[in-house]
Amino acid sequence: MTDRIDATHDASLQSWVASANAAGTDFPVQNLPLAIFRRAGSDEAWRPGAAIGDQVVDLLTLRDAGLLPRDAADALAGTEVGTLNALMGRGRAARVALRQALSQGLREGAADRAQWQAALVPQAGAEHGLPARIGDYTDFYIGIHHATAVGRLFRPDSPLLPNYKWVPIGYHGRASSIVASGTALRRPLGQGKGPDDAAPQLRPSQRLDYELELGIFVGPGNAQGAPVPIAEAEDHLFGIGLFNDWSARDVQAWEYQPLGPFLSKNFASTLAPWVVTLEALEPFRIPFTRPEGDPQPLAYLDSAETRARGGLDLQLEVWIQTAQMRAAGQPHEQLARAGSRHAYWTIGQLVSHHTIGGCNLQPGDLFGSGTLSGPGEGQGGSLLELSHGGRQPLVLANGEKRVFLQDSDSIQLRAYGVREGFRRIGFGVCEGTVLPAPAP
Amino acid sequence: MTDRIDATHDASLQSWVASANAAGTDFPVQNLPLAIFRRAGSDEAWRPGAAIGDQVVDLLTLRDAGLLPRDAADALAGTEVGTLNALMGRGRAARVALRQALSQGLREGAADRAQWQAALVPQAGAEHGLPARIGDYTDFYIGIHHATAVGRLFRPDSPLLPNYKWVPIGYHGRASSIVASGTALRRPLGQGKGPDDAAPQLRPSQRLDYELELGIFVGPGNAQGAPVPIAEAEDHLFGIGLFNDWSARDVQAWEYQPLGPFLSKNFASTLAPWVVTLEALEPFRIPFTRPEGDPQPLAYLDSAETRARGGLDLQLEVWIQTAQMRAAGQPHEQLARAGSRHAYWTIGQLVSHHTIGGCNLQPGDLFGSGTLSGPGEGQGGSLLELSHGGRQPLVLANGEKRVFLQDSDSIQLRAYGVREGFRRIGFGVCEGTVLPAPAP
Repeated sequence: MTDRIDATHDASLQSWVASANAAGTDFPVQNLPLAIFRRAGSDEAWRPGAAIGDQVVDLLTLRDAGLLPRDAADALAGTEVGTLNALMGRGRAARVALRQALSQGLREGAADRAQWQAALVPQAGAEHGLPARIGDYTDFYIGIHHATAVGRLFRPDSPLLPNYKWVPIGYHGRASSIVASGTALRRPLGQGKGPDDAAPQLRPSQRLDYELELGIFVGPGNAQGAPVPIAEAEDHLFGIGLFNDWSARDVQAWEYQPLGPFLSKNFASTLAPWVVTLEALEPFRIPFTRPEGDPQPLAYLDSAETRARGGLDLQLEVWIQTAQMRAAGQPHEQLARAGSRHAYWTIGQLVSHHTIGGCNLQPGDLFGSGTLSGPGEGQGGSLLELSHGGRQPLVLANGEKRVFLQDSDSIQLRAYGVREGFRRIGFGVCEGTVLPAPAP
Repeated sequence: MTDRIDATHDASLQSWVASANAAGTDFPVQNLPLAIFRRAGSDEAWRPGAAIGDQVVDLLTLRDAGLLPRDAADALAGTEVGTLNALMGRGRAARVALRQALSQGLREGAADRAQWQAALVPQAGAEHGLPARIGDYTDFYIGIHHATAVGRLFRPDSPLLPNYKWVPIGYHGRASSIVASGTALRRPLGQGKGPDDAAPQLRPSQRLDYELELGIFVGPGNAQGAPVPIAEAEDHLFGIGLFNDWSARDVQAWEYQPLGPFLSKNFASTLAPWVVTLEALEPFRIPFTRPEGDPQPLAYLDSAETRARGGLDLQLEVWIQTAQMRAAGQPHEQLARAGSRHAYWTIGQLVSHHTIGGCNLQPGDLFGSGTLSGPGEGQGGSLLELSHGGRQPLVLANGEKRVFLQDSDSIQLRAYGVREGFRRIGFGVCEGTVLPAPAP
């Protein structure tokens, strides 16, 4: 790990943007996550920005004002179209050049402060597009506690299937319906069939759920037919954001055999604005280990570096605000906490597995981690788990009960990394509110 | 049906391109399928073309020479980027305008013949790109004989699951690895585990197969959250081409539970060059019926028009050429025949089902039909079926045997519609050759 910790991670660095120095901020100068933004409600072109405290720094304004060194300016070429794909495709060196330049320019004591100041836009006055044009989206299933808990509900006899500890299970998802945080989503209509119903019927989903996931963006792609060796796997990744893979459990239960989830997952998925780069996450890398007695990964998924630093230790949270809470002026309330350290596979292993048969990845492709639940009570990354399959309602502070989502519920995902000797690195908020279903 | 049969379908129409009048041609003047092409081996820009006999007519050359009426010229706006997406998004009226103009200009006795002649490129000297930038690709499973035969192999106790006759089963596939006909593909590496193996191992797929499918292109899209009513469903479709969804059966058997096929299907899928428009297929529309005793579709999948003309009666074929045949100068040999009339769901039902939960379709999206097998011996749309799960080798004319594909095998898919009183309408050829796996 230590060879990738540099001066940009130094916990003593302060920014001249005062809000970036607050203890609880998601966006200290050590983070510098990237997004696509514009002034809220404007018809400005979407453009790339980096978060610093409660501000967004407009990267093309910086570049066009000549405030970035050549390598950082070059890193931005192609982002004028309003996506980060070109930067993603350029790989680690370009990303690091940009990080270094932003760290230099935003830290306390930097030169050209007035000019940099002119490139700031308050986050409160910004709106966000998707960070990338997502060519293909793949959802994995690396949260073993989620896989076990959900497996128990769908298949009581064999919750965790024999392939789980060998294959990083994944499936292709729908790219077109991935929306930016803050976009409301309609409750889906779909076929549902109870165990005692003679026939299915079309109805608004009665078991609408969220899923707490990380969204991992692909950086440079690979050629079709050319698997990515595990030693190079992370060279093909860019960074990580929060991802809510909304799910209609009743639709899923009826439709998913034999080819997997389809309409139960493709009506909307919500992506947080900010992509935290692999560099910003460096302090939170941890060894990848398997529980005693579990098989070691096959060779194409195994490497010394994977074992030494393949894991990622982030804290994840789910928060809810109901219509009643909103009317009463109550903020979101925490529903669950979990952690990425419970992932059964590393982000690098996902790259090598995805490409081992020759599938080509492209810059801006998205991997969902799958729901990241912890092992304990209250650590489920979905209501399906928290409510024990819909049998045990959760009781909120105001006395309202939930087994699944009701119309007007707003769900927020949040995440951060904390480690002794480093600044807290946050992911911002991934938010979506449920609208009623259309008329059937 | 009759209201959509017009003068362009008249079987007595002849073209001044003599090869279009040959009895066996796929491309008489009644067809006029569309593709993206350029001169083979050139670095010309990809551009749209229509097939006529053994020629491609260059549509932008026609337009730029002022040979197309305004509505047909307008239909081509945006195709200069080298994809048909813009035309697809414009819907039926634009497509019909183009068809009318091409039918007028290419028929015997048309004016401006010399100028039209100058826009012809021999198909033998052309190469093809993908017809569209495919945002999302969905593979359905509408061949009930395939679903039953394969189901029997994977799940002897319940070959056809209880949802099959209610839900048009589908799943999301990988768009990035869809390649144009003629592109060779590498045999994939993947995990395989026999029933008696203690652990899986990584190896070249031992059960590589093709799948005989139709590829259905989406025309105008729908807004997220807005299902497409069945009465409007075909307004959102453009046309149909041949599609080979190569499959690694050993990988599939080990990986597919519980979330569906992933690496077993995403290493390569081959799309034929030519997209036959819905208009050209009009003579082959047939009533959609359900076998006696089967449930009728739910209301969102049912309409008078669906019942009257939802089906499609096309003949489908699979042909093989092995390395030994190639060396001996032998052409491809027919492996199987099947028909699209065995589909359990209509193309319009696929649109309404895909969008019922609110999923947004976009112009150029692709639906695979799923393997279209017939009910009889020799009508399987995959080797898995023809070889009865790998247990009964097929014997080729030269004595070679096949249970699954061997390296250097070339597979061609072909299709056509025939109906008394109409010209034969063909789909051209969808071809791919298997290369050896990369070193593990």
